[in-house]
Amino acid sequence: MSGNSLGKLFRVTNWGESHGKAIGVVVDGCPSLLELSEKDIQKELDRRIPGQSKITTQRKEKDKVEILSGIFNGKTTGTPISMIIYNKDFRKEDYKKLTKALRSSHADFTYEKKYGIRNPYGGGRSSARLTAGNVAAGAIAKKILKEKLNTEIIAYTKRIKDIEAVVDTGKVKEKYVEASIVRCPDHKKSEEMEALVEETAKKGDSVGGIIECVARNIPPGLGEPIFDKLDADLAKAMMDINAVKGFEIGSGFSAAGMYGTAHNDPFIMEAGKIRTKTNNSGGVQGGISNGMPIILRVAFKPTATIQKQKAIDMKGNDIKLGAGRHDPCVVPRAVPIVEAMAALVLCDHYLRFKALGGKDGN
Amino acid sequence: MSGNSLGKLFRVTNWGESHGKAIGVVVDGCPSLLELSEKDIQKELDRRIPGQSKITTQRKEKDKVEILSGIFNGKTTGTPISMIIYNKDFRKEDYKKLTKALRSSHADFTYEKKYGIRNPYGGGRSSARLTAGNVAAGAIAKKILKEKLNTEIIAYTKRIKDIEAVVDTGKVKEKYVEASIVRCPDHKKSEEMEALVEETAKKGDSVGGIIECVARNIPPGLGEPIFDKLDADLAKAMMDINAVKGFEIGSGFSAAGMYGTAHNDPFIMEAGKIRTKTNNSGGVQGGISNGMPIILRVAFKPTATIQKQKAIDMKGNDIKLGAGRHDPCVVPRAVPIVEAMAALVLCDHYLRFKALGGKDGN
Amino acid sequence: MSGNSLGKLFRVTNWGESHGKAIGVVVDGCPSLLELSEKDIQKELDRRIPGQSKITTQRKEKDKVEILSGIFNGKTTGTPISMIIYNKDFRKEDYKKLTKALRSSHADFTYEKKYGIRNPYGGGRSSARLTAGNVAAGAIAKKILKEKLNTEIIAYTKRIKDIEAVVDTGKVKEKYVEASIVRCPDHKKSEEMEALVEETAKKGDSVGGIIECVARNIPPGLGEPIFDKLDADLAKAMMDINAVKGFEIGSGFSAAGMYGTAHNDPFIMEAGKIRTKTNNSGGVQGGISNGMPIILRVAFKPTATIQKQKAIDMKGNDIKLGAGRHDPCVVPRAVPIVEAMAALVLCDHYLRFKALGGKDGN
Amino acid sequence: MSGNSLGKLFRVTNWGESHGKAIGVVVDGCPSLLELSEKDIQKELDRRIPGQSKITTQRKEKDKVEILSGIFNGKTTGTPISMIIYNKDFRKEDYKKLTKALRSSHADFTYEKKYGIRNPYGGGRSSARLTAGNVAAGAIAKKILKEKLNTEIIAYTKRIKDIEAVVDTGKVKEKYVEASIVRCPDHKKSEEMEALVEETAKKGDSVGGIIECVARNIPPGLGEPIFDKLDADLAKAMMDINAVKGFEIGSGFSAAGMYGTAHNDPFIMEAGKIRTKTNNSGGVQGGISNGMPIILRVAFKPTATIQKQKAIDMKGNDIKLGAGRHDPCVVPRAVPIVEAMAALVLCDHYLRFKALGGKDGN
Repeated sequence: MSGNSLGKLFRVTNWGESHGKAIGVVVDGCPSLLELSEKDIQKELDRRIPGQSKITTQRKEKDKVEILSGIFNGKTTGTPISMIIYNKDFRKEDYKKLTKALRSSHADFTYEKKYGIRNPYGGGRSSARLTAGNVAAGAIAKKILKEKLNTEIIAYTKRIKDIEAVVDTGKVKEKYVEASIVRCPDHKKSEEMEALVEETAKKGDSVGGIIECVARNIPPGLGEPIFDKLDADLAKAMMDINAVKGFEIGSGFSAAGMYGTAHNDPFIMEAGKIRTKTNNSGGVQGGISNGMPIILRVAFKPTATIQKQKAIDMKGNDIKLGAGRHDPCVVPRAVPIVEAMAALVLCDHYLRFKALGGKDGN
Repeated sequence: MSGNSLGKLFRVTNWGESHGKAIGVVVDGCPSLLELSEKDIQKELDRRIPGQSKITTQRKEKDKVEILSGIFNGKTTGTPISMIIYNKDFRKEDYKKLTKALRSSHADFTYEKKYGIRNPYGGGRSSARLTAGNVAAGAIAKKILKEKLNTEIIAYTKRIKDIEAVVDTGKVKEKYVEASIVRCPDHKKSEEMEALVEETAKKGDSVGGIIECVARNIPPGLGEPIFDKLDADLAKAMMDINAVKGFEIGSGFSAAGMYGTAHNDPFIMEAGKIRTKTNNSGGVQGGISNGMPIILRVAFKPTATIQKQKAIDMKGNDIKLGAGRHDPCVVPRAVPIVEAMAALVLCDHYLRFKALGGKDGN
Repeated sequence: MSGNSLGKLFRVTNWGESHGKAIGVVVDGCPSLLELSEKDIQKELDRRIPGQSKITTQRKEKDKVEILSGIFNGKTTGTPISMIIYNKDFRKEDYKKLTKALRSSHADFTYEKKYGIRNPYGGGRSSARLTAGNVAAGAIAKKILKEKLNTEIIAYTKRIKDIEAVVDTGKVKEKYVEASIVRCPDHKKSEEMEALVEETAKKGDSVGGIIECVARNIPPGLGEPIFDKLDADLAKAMMDINAVKGFEIGSGFSAAGMYGTAHNDPFIMEAGKIRTKTNNSGGVQGGISNGMPIILRVAFKPTATIQKQKAIDMKGNDIKLGAGRHDPCVVPRAVPIVEAMAALVLCDHYLRFKALGGKDGN
Repeated sequence: MSGNSLGKLFRVTNWGESHGKAIGVVVDGCPSLLELSEKDIQKELDRRIPGQSKITTQRKEKDKVEILSGIFNGKTTGTPISMIIYNKDFRKEDYKKLTKALRSSHADFTYEKKYGIRNPYGGGRSSARLTAGNVAAGAIAKKILKEKLNTEIIAYTKRIKDIEAVVDTGKVKEKYVEASIVRCPDHKKSEEMEALVEETAKKGDSVGGIIECVARNIPPGLGEPIFDKLDADLAKAMMDINAVKGFEIGSGFSAAGMYGTAHNDPFIMEAGKIRTKTNNSGGVQGGISNGMPIILRVAFKPTATIQKQKAIDMKGNDIKLGAGRHDPCVVPRAVPIVEAMAALVLCDHYLRFKALGGKDGN
């Protein structure tokens, strides 16, 4: 009800503020008897943390996760998995000026209007730091999908400003993504993007981009009719990520410019299974997965925090802010977040599918 | 859980199949003492029905709504409002060939895989006809928002194929939209679009497009942090509409190509209220409304039903289908559906906002 | 949220008012491919209707159910099952005096305070007539449990005033219950109860009683830890029935007077299965079914409607009411309602159990 | 879905195992700007901890609560309040024998069947220790109700075995309850109860009892029709407490033995407000509060852990267990738990009532 939980059968409750004592997440509905350790979680968190490369903010958060419940002898018990990350790198003085500031295109003003109070340090509850909990939960979802369905979920930087990568959604692998500082598996474009981000950082500016995500080995039958369509739930999860302004699946916005004869995906038989020849549907038809790879794209705005950050107070007076630490482009660090959110949605729908007797075979 | 309900405080449960006995919707959570009659509902349903003009399918569904509960002496009682639309224009013979057909880019295959059974007549549960129930529910949501907040929700055809309208989101009115057969308030582009749709129909083809929607007079404070962000819930609701492939808010995908210095919306004081100078945020910051108009766009694929509809059966054999009745472009008829879905989300979040003591003033 | 839906995976949404156009229920989450017809529903509804015998009110409601959706070729499609019962026997004049009356121990006053408006005819939304929808939904739940688990759910009148039946919970069958006008399978006590109810009716008074319900063939594993314990959800469902004032499971309130040495149920092996020697637990331990019969009891107050019904208006003035038609004892007619509510809870938990990979074997 | 969350607008998610690293609770939906500190929580937790007196188990858990999020400058921010209690007093060796033991009337067997794995130490997830989180959450609910409505929620030991206290529900105060080791405000009966519990402890046995709870200053209008009746939600919450076997409201089971003429509560005017002369309804009519005190009773079975605890393993072999530490009677320590659960339900319904525009005046 209050916007801090996601999922129906695989349910994540996220709590904490950027610079509070700790942040964390409770995962409820994880099936029992899954092997799980902090290592499984930590490896995904390590992909999200800042300070990984010269192009991300140099705050060293570390984000060391601790599992507090729901595991016994290395296996899940079917009861809630509580995970906590204590906050460390918090220089309160940095943020003192911020307590009254309503920064342009941040959530300071809207939180103030909604709650009449907010924790201003580091953006408080509205900080992208809170996605760490979701990445932790997503690591569990990913593992369930991997073990049960051999699902692979791979996201990567598709575009930064006008530099667009060419990526084969059928062949892209995580290692190609991780080999790039900007998480773009197209080597040549990756270098261009990197240069652009560095240059943008030097100017004290920020820049937007697009992440593409493919999920392979999703069986047909996931998703619900009318309201909890698989693509609709994916859209919601992606729009819940900080700085996201748009979502599309398959042909996406380009479908608006097409004729039906070109857009329809003809069915074919392939190794005894019904597949589609093209995949404008992006793996979802009528809100339900059809067994083809799920392909989606997410648009990110340029980071709102820039060097010459404008701000006012609640009375409309200008407030001068120093230059804060910030990522000139959120896209590279958002790659594991997009994967995590996709995993959360797909895992929830997978369990819902199983609840009604769905079979695992693809 | 099973994808037939939407909303938390203002909750809609949709039931029925395209060519079953009836379709309907139960609206739970409508505040009491709202004046409401079938007329309020019917006027929105009349905008959605086919056969309104030469460019839409000539099936005359009529969609006559009946309110069965929740109203006493012309006012809502706070208990569930059950609405029913009996189905009439059902020529079963038209669809007999369809019972085994898995039509390209329809939901026949995915429903078959998910449930092992489906009502094939008219697309059954997966038909866009089911949006009628949502339009009926949306009419109530619209009325609540209008009475409590003077909210105006106006959607219109922004683009069909490559023809893009120029529309002032601050000034557009429903009457300008309704004056156009294609529901495009840009008179000149409307004529071009109309010609394109007619021509497409003649070729037995279909075409995609984009609907833009603006919601004015939404107070700051609607939407939740982390997971039920207002824009995320809007995205989900829009993606739940049949044939939708993409969603964006404010600057949307264009944000991906921008610098932060250009994208940030500076705060200004306007008549004693804090507003933003530009509205790249689309009225939502940190997932919460900021008092500016909410502006979103929805991409529709070309209608999957075309004259030379391809289909196979579950064994992979080709099935020859006759030419069905279809809309060459779903966009014009989808305009009231987009408005309805926006109204459902906004009304639900408005009630959630009130639950925590939110004030109505903008 | 607004109290008109029950269940998580098997979800029932109830709508209507006692004397509105119709009442009904939408069942969402019913697995596909279950054979289902109106006959399955009608037989349970016929057990609930008034006018069945000399001891129940003579209103002939009939309660003819119609299934409007969710069935194709005699089988469930996995999509919502909408059921409707049109209201017929409504003599509006009977109730005119009631529009301002706040009758003792009815819900007139609380509805007035909650909503500021109410449909007063026949008690409107607060009437026990609304349980008809739940009985219809319960008939589906019963059928699922019967087919999947061979579950039998049998309720019966255990007590009316001070007359208490002796019933063997292991052997009682529905036919013994239905053979009795008061639905008490203890033949001798049944006659005494019948005489007491008739005598009470003659005096224009009403009388309370207790229903006991046993559910046999429920596998171990149904129910959740901490908050959705099986017995807790059964308690809630029973307390949701009109006129109920108490609930107990297994030893119930008598446990308060016992020592642990006497109350504990020792485990034994029986035909290779772990069972308990005694069943003070009532088939539930730690909130989860243990494979033993579930045994519960529900206390009903005397019908609030009596011949000399007292009432006031909102200003405190006395209102004189004529003698309305009423049941002198709600217990016999409530027997199928208790069974239905038990079935709804058990079926929901059965599906939740399956969602996590639970096996059907008992 | 998985039974670890309670409430709709005021939502509690409980996690942890008795002897895991920590236990905790996330409270989502707490209105902003409420003054709140760890002291508010600790004082309720201190009432629940063991080792308070000679009649409770001597384990010194301490249960020191820490608030990790949701508070800024001493006030709630409207975002999730995460509370944690680290576990300390854990002598693993005590429990080693228990890992295979299925103890009579415990949840060992049902957890084993449900999950195929369980944390056996101290009862793991099924331990009453987990109620500490609920008591912490309940402390917040209590404070909200106190500040907004001046609500008083007072529970006390009504009965232990056959010793029944006489308590005036209109006058009882917490200080009278807390003055008694067994939490019985009837001084004379308190002494008898204390003697009985001590004697029972000496015999290595345990004994059951009844807690009564009164909530004063609850406005009319809380509770929903049909399914989320206030008394139904209270019943569910109480049945969720470990060892509870029965629930009743107002007249409760005694209503089964009454005539309607005696049971009906006539309305009267009192200081300009509509009240009832008697309160057999227990403050709830038609599932909605009527402004009278809410009065309920909860039956507890004797503690399952006794000195001569029987147990078997999954193959049916007897397991000999040493005498564990246990409370001979759970009732005194359960008093604050009953209050907490009542507070959680009442607070949730209060917020739901406000969401629809309900007024605070009683």
